[in-house]
Amino acid sequence: MEHSLLKEGLARVQREVDSVFDAILPVPQDSRARLVEAMRYAAIGGGKRVRPLLLVSTAEMFGVNRDAALRAACAVEAIHVYSLIHDDLPCMDDDSLRHGKPTVHVEFDEATAVLAGDSLHALAFEILADTDTSEDPFTRSELILTLGTASGKDGMAGGQMMDMMAEGEDYDLHTITRLQQLKTGALLAASVEMGAILGHVQPEGRGHLRAYARDIGLAFQIADDLLDVEGDAEIAGKALRKDERQGKQTFVTLMGVDKAREQARALVDQAIGHLSVHGDDAKMLAAVARYIVERDR
Amino acid sequence: MEHSLLKEGLARVQREVDSVFDAILPVPQDSRARLVEAMRYAAIGGGKRVRPLLLVSTAEMFGVNRDAALRAACAVEAIHVYSLIHDDLPCMDDDSLRHGKPTVHVEFDEATAVLAGDSLHALAFEILADTDTSEDPFTRSELILTLGTASGKDGMAGGQMMDMMAEGEDYDLHTITRLQQLKTGALLAASVEMGAILGHVQPEGRGHLRAYARDIGLAFQIADDLLDVEGDAEIAGKALRKDERQGKQTFVTLMGVDKAREQARALVDQAIGHLSVHGDDAKMLAAVARYIVERDR
Repeated sequence: MEHSLLKEGLARVQREVDSVFDAILPVPQDSRARLVEAMRYAAIGGGKRVRPLLLVSTAEMFGVNRDAALRAACAVEAIHVYSLIHDDLPCMDDDSLRHGKPTVHVEFDEATAVLAGDSLHALAFEILADTDTSEDPFTRSELILTLGTASGKDGMAGGQMMDMMAEGEDYDLHTITRLQQLKTGALLAASVEMGAILGHVQPEGRGHLRAYARDIGLAFQIADDLLDVEGDAEIAGKALRKDERQGKQTFVTLMGVDKAREQARALVDQAIGHLSVHGDDAKMLAAVARYIVERDR
Repeated sequence: MEHSLLKEGLARVQREVDSVFDAILPVPQDSRARLVEAMRYAAIGGGKRVRPLLLVSTAEMFGVNRDAALRAACAVEAIHVYSLIHDDLPCMDDDSLRHGKPTVHVEFDEATAVLAGDSLHALAFEILADTDTSEDPFTRSELILTLGTASGKDGMAGGQMMDMMAEGEDYDLHTITRLQQLKTGALLAASVEMGAILGHVQPEGRGHLRAYARDIGLAFQIADDLLDVEGDAEIAGKALRKDERQGKQTFVTLMGVDKAREQARALVDQAIGHLSVHGDDAKMLAAVARYIVERDR
């Protein structure tokens, strides 16, 4: 039951996100065509769309118009996609496979990958700043500040830097937790937060949603670490066993496989507990939490 | 007289921009330190700060508070700086010298350069979205949309892509003009536009400022092409003679040195003509226009 709820929720948001990107990324008739084709290649199709689903599901609990939520969801996803493009570059993780197809710098070239990432980064803020939408300008600023902070040096990019410095370092569990809260957690949390912002939930009323987001953020990363050790690269559509190769400490190296799995499940239960005040309205968010540790890619 | 006006204007804005970046980029006490150090290395000191001067000078004509103008100016400059970091990467222009010092990927490393660029990119929007400032939220959204559009696929990044595709291509004057309007012109124009937005000048009242910005944008690029051919690399603080080496058409290869210089001067005169309605209030913008073609770096 819950499984099919999630499956339908993911399938719907995947279709919708693809359709928004398709509409806002027409290929121009000049030599920028290659740039936009690279943006489309990375942004359309393939992604799980966990962040968009979190955003639209949170927004839905507060009666937000679907189109408005979807636009904000695409802004978050544009940030996520740009970060994957840059992360896969030879000077970063040097990955050649993503979502089961060649990474952008392999399919196109490195310079195009840098620029396509940069352009998707700008696109995220263009989407949010678009004054033709129904949001009031104050909501719009709050969305932009939330996404900017979650993606910059005090969020995702900061976490990636810590991660890069982690090779061969003996990070302890506290440091790994902090690193992952920035690298993966910040953008997942921003997705939930932006849904609440669109729903005009005041900051003081967002505590339980932030607690939910923090828990699933950590669970998400533990699940990723487990996937890296135990997953099937074919199904995951990307290279695995990377942490060991790069000599990085992870939740799994620090806690062991069994303890890590146990911890991820406990975090998910705890996350779902934070949603109790919403009753049945939160069933999609609960389903996303479970999916996060049960996924195979 | 005008010369010292410009010199003082530039010196003041250079000091102010450095001081804002210094304040908003404290080095954290964890392994993100290297990231923030790279951001500071690129953002503080060295730049001419033409875009900030354009923004604050335009804003000043409309009585905008200096601090508000300066924050927006730093957002534009953060975008400019991030684009230089990414542009200098080995997979892009592969430059090792910028503002007379090693480029970010040489001084740090490539991965740090990618992330420092990405973080400065996010910082630009964080600065503009900051809701603690005095801007009304509508003005804030308009600033963000203007900067997002000017920097993305329909602006700077699009122009860089066209430029990258230009190697060995036989672009005509029309295509080169379009390319440069995107690559350099869009952000210069956004600087002027954002000054007017802060001054609550309605779009229909910005026509002459846009005309001014378009003319100086082209003049700026012609001057850059001339510098590339005739400049002193020591003074410019970066590698020159690049266009010829890369086999790219430029205003100079298409028009010849004399005609290009004549054209740049004519554009500057035309740009200054657009400011006549402002009388003496526009003398800094006029001085910037002249500086743009007379600079040696």
